Amino acid sequence: MHSEPLLSSLDPAADAALAAPVWAASCPPTRAALLQALAEVLEEHREPLVALAHEETHLGVARLNGELDRTCFQLRAFADLVLAGGLHAVEHDTAIGGPPPRGRPDMQRVLVPLGPVAMFAASNFPFAFSVLGGDTASALAAGCPVVVRAHPAHLRLSRAVFHRVQQVLQAQRLPSGLVGLVDGASVEHGAALVQHPDIRAVAFTGSRRGGLALQALAAQRAVPIPFFGELGSVNPLVVLPAAFSDQSPDALAAQLAASVALGMGQFCTRPGVVVMADGEAPRRFIGELARQLAAAPVHPMLTPAIAQSYLAAAQALRRSAGVHVLVEPVPEHMGPLLATVQARDFVHPAHQAALRHEVFGPAVLVVVCEDASGLAPVLESMAGALVATLWGAEADSPLARQLVAVATARAGRVLFGGVPTGVAVTRAQQHGGPWPSSTQPAFTSVGLHACERFLRPVVYQSAPAWLLAGLPT
Amino acid sequence: MHSEPLLSSLDPAADAALAAPVWAASCPPTRAALLQALAEVLEEHREPLVALAHEETHLGVARLNGELDRTCFQLRAFADLVLAGGLHAVEHDTAIGGPPPRGRPDMQRVLVPLGPVAMFAASNFPFAFSVLGGDTASALAAGCPVVVRAHPAHLRLSRAVFHRVQQVLQAQRLPSGLVGLVDGASVEHGAALVQHPDIRAVAFTGSRRGGLALQALAAQRAVPIPFFGELGSVNPLVVLPAAFSDQSPDALAAQLAASVALGMGQFCTRPGVVVMADGEAPRRFIGELARQLAAAPVHPMLTPAIAQSYLAAAQALRRSAGVHVLVEPVPEHMGPLLATVQARDFVHPAHQAALRHEVFGPAVLVVVCEDASGLAPVLESMAGALVATLWGAEADSPLARQLVAVATARAGRVLFGGVPTGVAVTRAQQHGGPWPSSTQPAFTSVGLHACERFLRPVVYQSAPAWLLAGLPT
Repeated sequence: MHSEPLLSSLDPAADAALAAPVWAASCPPTRAALLQALAEVLEEHREPLVALAHEETHLGVARLNGELDRTCFQLRAFADLVLAGGLHAVEHDTAIGGPPPRGRPDMQRVLVPLGPVAMFAASNFPFAFSVLGGDTASALAAGCPVVVRAHPAHLRLSRAVFHRVQQVLQAQRLPSGLVGLVDGASVEHGAALVQHPDIRAVAFTGSRRGGLALQALAAQRAVPIPFFGELGSVNPLVVLPAAFSDQSPDALAAQLAASVALGMGQFCTRPGVVVMADGEAPRRFIGELARQLAAAPVHPMLTPAIAQSYLAAAQALRRSAGVHVLVEPVPEHMGPLLATVQARDFVHPAHQAALRHEVFGPAVLVVVCEDASGLAPVLESMAGALVATLWGAEADSPLARQLVAVATARAGRVLFGGVPTGVAVTRAQQHGGPWPSSTQPAFTSVGLHACERFLRPVVYQSAPAWLLAGLPT
Repeated sequence: MHSEPLLSSLDPAADAALAAPVWAASCPPTRAALLQALAEVLEEHREPLVALAHEETHLGVARLNGELDRTCFQLRAFADLVLAGGLHAVEHDTAIGGPPPRGRPDMQRVLVPLGPVAMFAASNFPFAFSVLGGDTASALAAGCPVVVRAHPAHLRLSRAVFHRVQQVLQAQRLPSGLVGLVDGASVEHGAALVQHPDIRAVAFTGSRRGGLALQALAAQRAVPIPFFGELGSVNPLVVLPAAFSDQSPDALAAQLAASVALGMGQFCTRPGVVVMADGEAPRRFIGELARQLAAAPVHPMLTPAIAQSYLAAAQALRRSAGVHVLVEPVPEHMGPLLATVQARDFVHPAHQAALRHEVFGPAVLVVVCEDASGLAPVLESMAGALVATLWGAEADSPLARQLVAVATARAGRVLFGGVPTGVAVTRAQQHGGPWPSSTQPAFTSVGLHACERFLRPVVYQSAPAWLLAGLPT
């Protein structure tokens, strides 16, 4: 037991490496008890933590309380997963006598933890993608220690949560190195963490530029390590004509405006491009969307740099050929951005950079096609996304089938109706789509499959009884 | 149907892309029927194909018949996997009412095929890691077309097998682009394949240098794609003192010599380093190993370049500090290499390059420790491997536990007794260990999990009934 466990370590990755064998060998009740206690400590200190989070992020007490709830739910969901067993996915092929290929030895396959995980917190989820967020919960559940790279946008909150984590570890007599914190503000601190020889995997949520730089470092190590980057995306929402048969243009516009403006649009799942065919209802929808967005409540963005980038992206969009701006932010009023563009201009290769890159903030671009046959080509022109939303595909039709196929090829999640913001923590969830939305679309950073990022299969061939008896279940 | 399906295409990757949606939507019986027919056609033309393979590779008719058996067994195993269902791993979370985090929408998770796979054949398995090898079988099973980069070491065989594949595709009225062949001999042909925009994943078995060059190309694409490289490894075999209680040194030496010399040692799973504590039995073992290896049958290696590399590696080893050569190849007699070295010299950082890199050929280096406490440090000094073998760990002991832990951290397969050459095709198999033995140790290139390389999860949220009804099972 450390006498001063609440100070951050000088070398948290090395401490994590010391804790790794202990944690890899821990039994399900031990792992689950830690995850549950971490959820409890968050709830116990909810009020001051949420107040601090609001002070640093301006995201609002209601949203932050909800995010804390989600974070606790997530920690407990992973605890339940651990207790249910099967996380280490034991598979057993019994020996078959005779010559190969049919004859075979006894083969016992298990999933083993990779070791210390470097986790890069996101600016926009100070609880759910930070010190005790999904990456930490899934790594701990998988049997891996975690070193969190705190996000400078909520450093005080990160330290406060880390302080509580250390208290829990101490109370449970677990090594303090099981959860570490790197809170130096410079880029070099993050780079050094990825390059640390004791780090075995990286989980990152953030900008494409930052993610690609760290990914390159992970690949250039003497021993390269996997880099799981969630880099954000332009999430398309395609409106089939049928969408307006069930719901009024006004109701749909209100729903979309709320999703775009929520938390100043600082969500990786915010719909960034809406694709629709021209017509009376779509025009009414766009008008109402403009009215709603212009009236949306405004609060400061997460950091001055994010606000500046948002304004710059809005300016770039305004200058693009064929773009009509209906609602726009100005430095004095950091409100939403709404613009429209014809499909032929959107799909033009020369416009790709300005029109199809993520704008981090409450921005939405409506792409108007001449008719419904233009919807699929616009979707096909877009890059990989975390989520694609289809409105009006509830009834079977060749158009619905075509759009589902195109959306499936381009997204990790395909949503029917509703809005893509809000990612449920469930077993089946997938938060990670084709490039450039994530670096490894075979994996997810939300939902119970998130553990798979931190496990590796090992098969024991003709293993002795003493080993088989001790394998995880 | 093409009028001339037996000619290779000018752009097989583009043809594969055309075939991709058809094949992704194919039902299990269609996929299984193709895999079964491909096994049948190999068996039907066994005699001329094996003769051609021997002519090009010198691997011997007995071994090549066995390899063809294994290849057919593998194709049928994947057919069975497809028919059993579950390959697309449908998972369903039903909706739960109420607010999040507990309340959730309906979530249906499926695994979808990535699309055309570029497959780089290996020199040393003209059937099992070539046109109809495990990569092709697992990709086709997963619903992905394959473009095979033929290995120049058995180009005529590759073309002959490809010809039969095209006949099967034609007979089953499947697109000829489902299996393509790139058989240009230059490095540029392979590079162009990895860079082709229609290729969505690469499966590679071969040298570290070639693999890393192609991996870099895959990462530098406008849309990066996953690269699954099996790059070979130095597979350690650790002899615990208890090994000599059950078996005589002579019997163990004969077993190891056969594994090292088999097929001129041209196996990625050949044991390259043997670690043992000094003693009377170990000395006798080494003497007998030398006798057996000196008398091992010799045949030409796969290519003149491989033979030259092997001789050069043997020369480099001979010049290394502390290395005693007991059996060595000479240009006129390309026989096995046996050398010994003391543990302190082996673990010395200055010697890492010469002593711990893979020598592709019938070479084995015996590392002698002063006592059994030296075994684990030697194993710890070694890099990731496809397979680590432990002899004498059958009884529970602190030493056995320590060595299993170290081996587990360094290998994809841990073998107890026996020899690591010969990789059974089973459900639980894992052929892919930590760096540098493979580029993505979370995946395997042998066994039924090999399909996972070519699938990606997608979750459908609140999917309409028409879509759910058509999802794969």
